[in-house]
Amino acid sequence: METWVDVPEGSGFGVENLPYGVFSRRGGPPRVGVAIGDRVLDLAGLAEAGLLTDRGWFAAGTLNSFMSAGRPVWQATRERLTALLTGPEHRGRVEPHLVPLSDADLRLPFDVADYVDFYSSRDHATNVGRIFRPNAEPLPPNWLHLPIGYHGRAGTVVPSGTPVVRPCGQRRSEDGPVFGPSLKLDIEAEVGFVVGVPSALGQPVPTAGFRDHVFGFVLVNDWSARDIQAWEYQPLGPFLGKSFATSISPWVVPLAALESARTAPPPQDPEPLPYLRCDEPWGLDLTLRIELNGHVVSHPPFATMYWTAPQQLAHATVNGAALRTGDLMASGTVSGPERDQRGCLIELTRDGREPLELPDGRRRAYLEDGDTVRIQATASGPGGAPIGFGEVTGTVLPASR
Amino acid sequence: METWVDVPEGSGFGVENLPYGVFSRRGGPPRVGVAIGDRVLDLAGLAEAGLLTDRGWFAAGTLNSFMSAGRPVWQATRERLTALLTGPEHRGRVEPHLVPLSDADLRLPFDVADYVDFYSSRDHATNVGRIFRPNAEPLPPNWLHLPIGYHGRAGTVVPSGTPVVRPCGQRRSEDGPVFGPSLKLDIEAEVGFVVGVPSALGQPVPTAGFRDHVFGFVLVNDWSARDIQAWEYQPLGPFLGKSFATSISPWVVPLAALESARTAPPPQDPEPLPYLRCDEPWGLDLTLRIELNGHVVSHPPFATMYWTAPQQLAHATVNGAALRTGDLMASGTVSGPERDQRGCLIELTRDGREPLELPDGRRRAYLEDGDTVRIQATASGPGGAPIGFGEVTGTVLPASR
Repeated sequence: METWVDVPEGSGFGVENLPYGVFSRRGGPPRVGVAIGDRVLDLAGLAEAGLLTDRGWFAAGTLNSFMSAGRPVWQATRERLTALLTGPEHRGRVEPHLVPLSDADLRLPFDVADYVDFYSSRDHATNVGRIFRPNAEPLPPNWLHLPIGYHGRAGTVVPSGTPVVRPCGQRRSEDGPVFGPSLKLDIEAEVGFVVGVPSALGQPVPTAGFRDHVFGFVLVNDWSARDIQAWEYQPLGPFLGKSFATSISPWVVPLAALESARTAPPPQDPEPLPYLRCDEPWGLDLTLRIELNGHVVSHPPFATMYWTAPQQLAHATVNGAALRTGDLMASGTVSGPERDQRGCLIELTRDGREPLELPDGRRRAYLEDGDTVRIQATASGPGGAPIGFGEVTGTVLPASR
Repeated sequence: METWVDVPEGSGFGVENLPYGVFSRRGGPPRVGVAIGDRVLDLAGLAEAGLLTDRGWFAAGTLNSFMSAGRPVWQATRERLTALLTGPEHRGRVEPHLVPLSDADLRLPFDVADYVDFYSSRDHATNVGRIFRPNAEPLPPNWLHLPIGYHGRAGTVVPSGTPVVRPCGQRRSEDGPVFGPSLKLDIEAEVGFVVGVPSALGQPVPTAGFRDHVFGFVLVNDWSARDIQAWEYQPLGPFLGKSFATSISPWVVPLAALESARTAPPPQDPEPLPYLRCDEPWGLDLTLRIELNGHVVSHPPFATMYWTAPQQLAHATVNGAALRTGDLMASGTVSGPERDQRGCLIELTRDGREPLELPDGRRRAYLEDGDTVRIQATASGPGGAPIGFGEVTGTVLPASR
């Protein structure tokens, strides 16, 4: 498949990808776009020119309306965009709707309904369990039986590039709890999926319903304050240690772009209960890359995740909980078995005891004010073409006083 | 203060209350109303007739727009409604906008942004701690230092009257986890507050900011599946044991109606950290009443709550988490020290070991299919006038197969 758009070598935004986002240009109104090479294709513009069917989906500030339209619409739109971008005869009419990425102000791509965060990497759960509960088995007794998850704060999901103010809160000290800026500000490199088509209250969505409800995947950085979290999280789970900010990438990679990346997940033993079984392999051959102040510090491999996205979706709804358009479900920290495959600093530095030595000579136990974190990811596409997720970045600002 | 509306003796909807809700009449469009006696005053109708200022707040399907308008608007609207309902000269023009409650279809009063559930009753936390963690101190070490809370599922908050399908899920057995309908379906009688005015990311809201951000209070029934919860909740907190349904009352009682109910909360020892201190007393003299199939089984006293609503709000934002219009923060189960003051069945029946003996001769350890739960609450108003919260009800339907 060849596109007439000039796609730079190694770009993750080839015509096999076509991720969706929301952008505005020079203070103009927001609209839905698709990334191609170093451009954004303005779908609202295409629709206005009569080149694309639009039922109010594209001249919009979020993807929610388009995402709710359902799989046949997603498929038809993707087929049409592919035809427009590969057929040389369309070039003259389509090219005016390509906007340089450098001119596009990228927004939060969708309004987040509920945000659920899972805990689905066995390596991560084992490593963190050892740190948080040194006197217990690292993996909780339920871990191999269900994809553990909890609800996070949807209202503080922010787009890539939003600065993150260091949170204040309570932490443990020898003299009882003290209040102040977190001393253990961390990241969590994750991959999340977003729900397009809602479900009815009382009606579980089986693993086989994944493709009918889920629109695509994003990158997630679930910023975490480990000292606040360690003091607060028992017995009802993380709250303020997580709720100050969760950053997501501006691009939503559609399921159709990830078909070639699907792979068998790790074997599950014990065999999960029937509602968690899945006929299709939904591991994803997707490698993350974490940069701290421009230095690569980790390459977490998403294919090692124990619980898959369809299992997470089936679990989250098996009690009859309804889905809404915009529900975001994140994987939990992606960590592989090797040290340079861990997805958060608490693991990379063993809770600060073994600080990272950066090539610029600086050391990091946890994040310092001014630090910038960038997470990227690439999946394997058809014929080895890279499917890029763009990036999710953020810079730490000092605590407010 | 006397109203010309015929308010039945003992009604909690006197002119001192004026709670807000959303209703429709005979399939008509939804609109904002205020309860008075056994009528609903149609605010959109009043506005259309030129009797009430409206900037798009009242011909609406939710209270969110009005709630976001802020305290000066809430005050001016309340003053105007009070004048219209107490001045005999207004009766002729206002009376056509009174709809019998029996003709009004009551809706979810607001779109829920994020839903946070606290755990602020010391009696409840102690009782439940003994049941869930029999070999540990019942009160966790952090409990007296901060109002423990977690995020629940906003998308499954439903209006009073919505049937609740018994959830399925995993529970512990001697032979490992098994799947099936919950055998321990419970309620939690709670009181929640709803945020009107949002706050900026990175800017904590102090306890003194409570009145500027919070619009009012509702009744909450946080349905809970104790067997699902017990198996899943460690280490990241409750998830499917709670996320299938949370019911709220159709009426939001504004803060202004609760001034006379304010009372000193229980003494706090140790003294909380400075950000949790509050100059005003925000205990509320408010008594709940739980009925199971028409039989009163408990009278939980809200004034016994250890952590107050302004403390909960200040805690939830001290890390810089932003507030949105429609954020719902619930108290956690309201339980007093006496057995007939407990706010959930796990406490009332000691996890089913001491079933309730109902006057109709039936016994209940947990809820059975077909059971109906009704929670009501009344606060003391000016001169002893009752301030009613209406009710939150729900009937249990069998698990879906």
